[in-house]
Amino acid sequence: MFYVIGLGLGDCKDISVKGLEIVKNCDRVYLEAYTSILSCPTSELEKFYGRKLIVADRELVEQGAADILDGAKERNVAFLVVGDPFGATTHTDLILRAKQNEIKVKIIHNASIMNAVGCCGLQLYTFGETISIPYWTENWRPDSFFTRIVSNFKNNLHTLCLLDIKVKEPTLESLMKKNREYMPPMFMSANEAAKQLLEILNKKSEHDTSGLCKDSLCIGLARVGCEDEKIIACTLNEMLEVDLGKPLHCMVIAAPKLHPLELEYVDQFRI
Amino acid sequence: MFYVIGLGLGDCKDISVKGLEIVKNCDRVYLEAYTSILSCPTSELEKFYGRKLIVADRELVEQGAADILDGAKERNVAFLVVGDPFGATTHTDLILRAKQNEIKVKIIHNASIMNAVGCCGLQLYTFGETISIPYWTENWRPDSFFTRIVSNFKNNLHTLCLLDIKVKEPTLESLMKKNREYMPPMFMSANEAAKQLLEILNKKSEHDTSGLCKDSLCIGLARVGCEDEKIIACTLNEMLEVDLGKPLHCMVIAAPKLHPLELEYVDQFRI
Repeated sequence: MFYVIGLGLGDCKDISVKGLEIVKNCDRVYLEAYTSILSCPTSELEKFYGRKLIVADRELVEQGAADILDGAKERNVAFLVVGDPFGATTHTDLILRAKQNEIKVKIIHNASIMNAVGCCGLQLYTFGETISIPYWTENWRPDSFFTRIVSNFKNNLHTLCLLDIKVKEPTLESLMKKNREYMPPMFMSANEAAKQLLEILNKKSEHDTSGLCKDSLCIGLARVGCEDEKIIACTLNEMLEVDLGKPLHCMVIAAPKLHPLELEYVDQFRI
Repeated sequence: MFYVIGLGLGDCKDISVKGLEIVKNCDRVYLEAYTSILSCPTSELEKFYGRKLIVADRELVEQGAADILDGAKERNVAFLVVGDPFGATTHTDLILRAKQNEIKVKIIHNASIMNAVGCCGLQLYTFGETISIPYWTENWRPDSFFTRIVSNFKNNLHTLCLLDIKVKEPTLESLMKKNREYMPPMFMSANEAAKQLLEILNKKSEHDTSGLCKDSLCIGLARVGCEDEKIIACTLNEMLEVDLGKPLHCMVIAAPKLHPLELEYVDQFRI
């Protein structure tokens, strides 16, 4: 059996009882470590589970699927994912590979930011499409996600903006070399996201933004589900200066009109 | 402290390790029992937790908030919710009440259908607004949710349709009486949802449906996260005849154009 187990968002105790039982009884357990992070280090997870973990970086997951799935027809292999197993396309790919190889797959769900974001007080039912904001480089400054934020805003829907993570990314220079070199890990902050959004906003005509502007309500969330979770509600412009602390951050662009209950809940997070 | 703890979607072992520790150590533990259901009865939960639970129906939650929160400033009270704590407006209301009374609140997140629906193979990032389909009565046949499905469809987004649940609903006749009488519990099936959608579709002009029709792809999901989870992909019209078995059901109206990976994943669920 190939188990894909969600770990939730906070620390080692956010795994479900079912998930923990499986982890303890598997032959091999991989920990996916590049699409998100937990607040506790791998060593702490290993101590809590009472077993060794194999850290799976992007290279192993994308090119070593056969290794990960090896023997999973007869034995039990688990693949641990921060959040819910269906949070990233890569995991879907791995599950498909398993099924093609006639390996049985079992999913153990957990919280992901897609539902935990409800902690900011905006109703999950009034969120539109979720978008991702990528790090810009000197020559690569995509802004197609902006159109989708505006589309949600126009329909009076909130937008959850997931912010870019770069973990164990090879440097451009080393891509062709045998020995890869890696960039230091980077986690986009709500400040950086607000900065990129404002840059795009400044270039658009009012007609293209449907009322979304620097004074629109946005909510920055850091370390959702962790002991030191932090939530701040302010204008997009004010978000430039907000200090949410350590990663992970995400940001919500609120719909123009909030339900009274949403307003009341969000008010506790105003600066 | 007032704890609001998500139980996830399946059985008693879907609670997180952290959640279970808290449940064992609280003075009073309420189980919310009307916005969703688990696959195991309350008695099984009590056995697994090793303690008594107070079942909280709609009347208690909506009118007895003061009772639920009583003493939570000095002692620990937990409120258990199927799925994630932010799945229903009622719980947000309860959390606000606690905060107004200067009671500390801690949320323990878990999987909800809003992210677990990823198990059908459609990417969570390409879902638009989630909608709820209510039971129609003879004189009350709202269809405003249909416009929102079409709006998602037009933007090439999937729609998660949550289906109505009626648990411990007072009968109309008894509403004014001292002794309330209750209707038997009702859980809308994917068949019933498809039937209501087709009735609405048949009354709309093609211009109002943006290509959404009886042959559009829809996915019925039953008991997501449970041992006997069942997923069927077919046309909206075929969904009329699909037998997904016991509750809970939900349904997804897929976007008109799927990503190749989505198509490949969904194909395993075709009838």
